[in-house]
Amino acid sequence: MNFAEASTLINDEIEKLNWNIEPEGLYAPVQHILSNGGKRLRPSILLMTSSIFTQETSHAIAPAIGVEIFHNSTLLHDDLMDGATLRRNQETVHVKWNDNTAILSGDAMILLASKFMCNCPSQYLKPVLEVYNKIALEVCDGQQYDMDFEQRTDVTINEYLQMIELKTAVLLAGSIKIGAILGGASVGDQDKLYRFGVNLGLAFQMVDDLLDVYGDEATFGKEIGGDIASNKKTFMLISAMDRASGQTREKLQGWLHAETFNRDEKIKEVTAIYNALGIKQLAEEKAEAYFHQSLEALSQLSVQNETVTQLADLATQMLKRNN
Amino acid sequence: MNFAEASTLINDEIEKLNWNIEPEGLYAPVQHILSNGGKRLRPSILLMTSSIFTQETSHAIAPAIGVEIFHNSTLLHDDLMDGATLRRNQETVHVKWNDNTAILSGDAMILLASKFMCNCPSQYLKPVLEVYNKIALEVCDGQQYDMDFEQRTDVTINEYLQMIELKTAVLLAGSIKIGAILGGASVGDQDKLYRFGVNLGLAFQMVDDLLDVYGDEATFGKEIGGDIASNKKTFMLISAMDRASGQTREKLQGWLHAETFNRDEKIKEVTAIYNALGIKQLAEEKAEAYFHQSLEALSQLSVQNETVTQLADLATQMLKRNN
Repeated sequence: MNFAEASTLINDEIEKLNWNIEPEGLYAPVQHILSNGGKRLRPSILLMTSSIFTQETSHAIAPAIGVEIFHNSTLLHDDLMDGATLRRNQETVHVKWNDNTAILSGDAMILLASKFMCNCPSQYLKPVLEVYNKIALEVCDGQQYDMDFEQRTDVTINEYLQMIELKTAVLLAGSIKIGAILGGASVGDQDKLYRFGVNLGLAFQMVDDLLDVYGDEATFGKEIGGDIASNKKTFMLISAMDRASGQTREKLQGWLHAETFNRDEKIKEVTAIYNALGIKQLAEEKAEAYFHQSLEALSQLSVQNETVTQLADLATQMLKRNN
Repeated sequence: MNFAEASTLINDEIEKLNWNIEPEGLYAPVQHILSNGGKRLRPSILLMTSSIFTQETSHAIAPAIGVEIFHNSTLLHDDLMDGATLRRNQETVHVKWNDNTAILSGDAMILLASKFMCNCPSQYLKPVLEVYNKIALEVCDGQQYDMDFEQRTDVTINEYLQMIELKTAVLLAGSIKIGAILGGASVGDQDKLYRFGVNLGLAFQMVDDLLDVYGDEATFGKEIGGDIASNKKTFMLISAMDRASGQTREKLQGWLHAETFNRDEKIKEVTAIYNALGIKQLAEEKAEAYFHQSLEALSQLSVQNETVTQLADLATQMLKRNN
């Protein structure tokens, strides 16, 4: 099963869900955010992983949707916490409705996610939920660290990497592991696939950070330079602070502490500092390194078949993406 | 096992939990709200119910704590949505920290609740989670209806009763049913105990509404008349609107539509209308009726032992309570 097949299947199943139920105020926002698209990366990769080990992927569909609902619940609450007004070119829930609706519908989605997750064969219920409960909580941990880091100036590269592992990578890795469990994979293969997922997730985030600075606005789909403008302590900014000395360091510090500034100028100047310090290449190498570790884990699986190749292809596309 | 024994056990177990973990910003609020007391009604009654059927109540403890954590997550988010500043005489989480902390820590508590719920013998996992996922979502439904009703003037008594069933009664009933499942009760006994819980929950809420009007401020622990002041569409207000005619109806309507008013005067006058219309007696009869239905369900259990008597005693105390 390739990604296109898996994501079509997931999209079809998500479209079939009926959110036209009472109380409308609770479920209309669920419908809004779920029908709003997105890549369906996590549920699709869950399904693909399952299909490495079994033809019987139908019982992976409900847990796959569970993962997607949980992911969207985090987007819903993150948008509220960040005060974001748009998500995939549509109004966010707290804007279209209000803050309380966003809180309560997000809560309902967390519970709905668990409900879908439980809809799997009894023999897999305990291991699936063990993985799911762990990673879902880790996503909250990651979000909290991300918020904490906004108030700190001494975030290290390792702390940043741990944060994005929790906030981004473990949900991808856990989805993959759940797919493996539901396919009947051995514990060894489950763990290798989890490692594949964590490293892929880290590579993915590294590429995301790169695109935020070096992407093309039209294809990236959001404004370039947001991370620089907001002093987000990404791998690139922390590396630049570590590498910069003398005048360059003073200049970078100046931009970080500037209370009023011309946004475009700040982005241009900080990007120039990144260029001078070789930060782009450093981040690309880091992304490559994670990418290779992910493929390495994949190559160690006890099974090698078409779907494994398709997972590797997907990983390659994710690394080479420009949006 | 009586209520005092069960709640002592639950309190001891909750005190043993270690929330001194990273990220502190996420778990310190969990510690704050969980160590803040409360009656521990739901987990204690879960444990008592389990002990009707088995001496081996130890494996009901984690799910019991799960129910308590979920209950507290709803309090945390409800306080944020209501803008409440105090809970059990302590600052609410969004006041002591901030809104975003309240959102994220509440989310983490929903996930922690599921995690504790899963910590039960494998053979009970599926039925326990089926009940839990259903009732937890129903609590959200109930909260949404409660918010919807604030904007409506045509709420019927049945709608109000359905709302409090969802918002309050099903969590109590579900906790009881989970206790029964974990005790190894038959499906018939599980259902009877659920009915016991729903009716007890409805009686409990009816008493709560009564105390809000007729309670003694010192023993009730909160200001009397809050429901009247805020036009909350309780059983009593809706019944009064149904019964009132002529001048009394006009007077009541006047208070409901008054934009500015003297709070004490409004409470005194509306209470006088309730008295004139026999609303207190009506609500007491309704509470009694639910109470008797709950005892009726209990009497139909296939097992009758000391704990069943203790559950009936607890129900009686809950109905006769003044706080």
